[in-house]
Amino acid sequence: MAETMKSGAVERITIVGAGLIGASIALALRRAQPGCRIAAVDPDPAVRAALVPGIADAATDDLAVGLRDAQLVFVACPVGDMPAVLEAVARLAPGDCLVTDCASTKASVAIAAADAFGIDSPRFVAGHPIAGSEGSGPGAARADLFEGRIWLLCPAGPAQEKSAARLGELLERMGARVESIHPAAHDAMFAEFSHWPHAVAFALCAAIADGAFADAARHFSGAGLRDTTRIGASSPQLWTEILLDNREPVLASARRFREKLDALEAALRASDADGLEALLAAGSRWRRAVD
Amino acid sequence: MAETMKSGAVERITIVGAGLIGASIALALRRAQPGCRIAAVDPDPAVRAALVPGIADAATDDLAVGLRDAQLVFVACPVGDMPAVLEAVARLAPGDCLVTDCASTKASVAIAAADAFGIDSPRFVAGHPIAGSEGSGPGAARADLFEGRIWLLCPAGPAQEKSAARLGELLERMGARVESIHPAAHDAMFAEFSHWPHAVAFALCAAIADGAFADAARHFSGAGLRDTTRIGASSPQLWTEILLDNREPVLASARRFREKLDALEAALRASDADGLEALLAAGSRWRRAVD
Repeated sequence: MAETMKSGAVERITIVGAGLIGASIALALRRAQPGCRIAAVDPDPAVRAALVPGIADAATDDLAVGLRDAQLVFVACPVGDMPAVLEAVARLAPGDCLVTDCASTKASVAIAAADAFGIDSPRFVAGHPIAGSEGSGPGAARADLFEGRIWLLCPAGPAQEKSAARLGELLERMGARVESIHPAAHDAMFAEFSHWPHAVAFALCAAIADGAFADAARHFSGAGLRDTTRIGASSPQLWTEILLDNREPVLASARRFREKLDALEAALRASDADGLEALLAAGSRWRRAVD
Repeated sequence: MAETMKSGAVERITIVGAGLIGASIALALRRAQPGCRIAAVDPDPAVRAALVPGIADAATDDLAVGLRDAQLVFVACPVGDMPAVLEAVARLAPGDCLVTDCASTKASVAIAAADAFGIDSPRFVAGHPIAGSEGSGPGAARADLFEGRIWLLCPAGPAQEKSAARLGELLERMGARVESIHPAAHDAMFAEFSHWPHAVAFALCAAIADGAFADAARHFSGAGLRDTTRIGASSPQLWTEILLDNREPVLASARRFREKLDALEAALRASDADGLEALLAAGSRWRRAVD
């Protein structure tokens, strides 16, 4: 990695994919490191138009142009595009440039990165900022999106551990709390408490949308429904890719959820007040310990 | 109804059941009508101790004492206690006193109220403030809980419509937006966008609590999981009663949800990206129109 990166002063950073996460990274970097130059690469002309000058110094749809002279690259494109984008970035980025990604799944990224950069290449370290919102696009970006939030890194070996330590310093200056995790553990965990809950919220929204009370629900619903379904407003395209990419762990979480749902419905059908209350209490006990 | 109530100045109000809703009603009444005297009736000594003097002027566990001289009574006890409490209130409250309830289900209350007060008695009108939180007890009470929120009334006939009009004036001074609805329509709607979503949130919490990542979820989870599961922290006892009381409409909503969940899981299992995205998009479109 370049000496400048080692000393903590990264001057030239490229964001590949400038949606909510990519654009928020640019804003957080500007705040953490006011002198840096930020280039953005995005295929969407409307996104590029929204980036300059407030979010990035330059925006292009040409990866080779965007990566020229880069010392650090954040790849924040959709999960499904990751293998092709990592291959192109490995080919086009300077040899001493560090590359990281922001995808919500990590096992498939680990495989794609090993293909693109080689196994445990110091040029890459996989990452996942645990931050976001139901919004999408650079219009939803916020400089404080990572403030106090965990940013997971998944180094594949000793070489990437060193790169992760250097990258982590910058991420902490952006407000994040950096931790390391193994890709398979990451994917099983996020299936359980992010990906499957998103699927449930989407299904709940789809059922209400298709029922007799789709309009009434908008009028009468309180904070409870709003909260429960909020992530159901997330990008369908993005979440289709995440769910498919992390299919087996998500289906395992789905099985565990269905066991509880079946038990709850059976208790309700049988008017089994004690059984029903025991089930609700188990969930409630866990949730009360969350905040 | 007493002349004082007709002229808008209700001086003596009794709250039966001083949990989150009952105590919030007391606080909102104090603000809307500073001179009024508020009595509370609750079987729990800890609740009574938390009420006086900040929330109520007097607190008792004796319904007859609490109802003496009352001009207006809010019954805010759990759904399951409603038939017995309404019967006792009808027997013990002054003849010119107006009684209303705050239960989350209305068909069973309509039946219990007809038994207790007679059909379309001007002494009663059923109600449901669409407000609340995952908190419970008087400690979670807020004077602004009903500010800008809908408060539904379910008059059973012409006599109760007149009572509803008078009660509505006071509720509006407490900040609420008053609307009328039929009990059966109320229960079908709230099964769909409140009761069943609560069941789903409880089941999601129970599945995570029982899985390998119960502790990790607390550590790593972002705003998405917190929002989706928030109502899973609600009172298990309260929600057992609501779900059982509104069983058939809730099971109908459950069937519609399962159709979507089955379709989503089948598309995921088959790696059918188009089918999966269409389903997520239907939910997302509805949710984006909510706020």
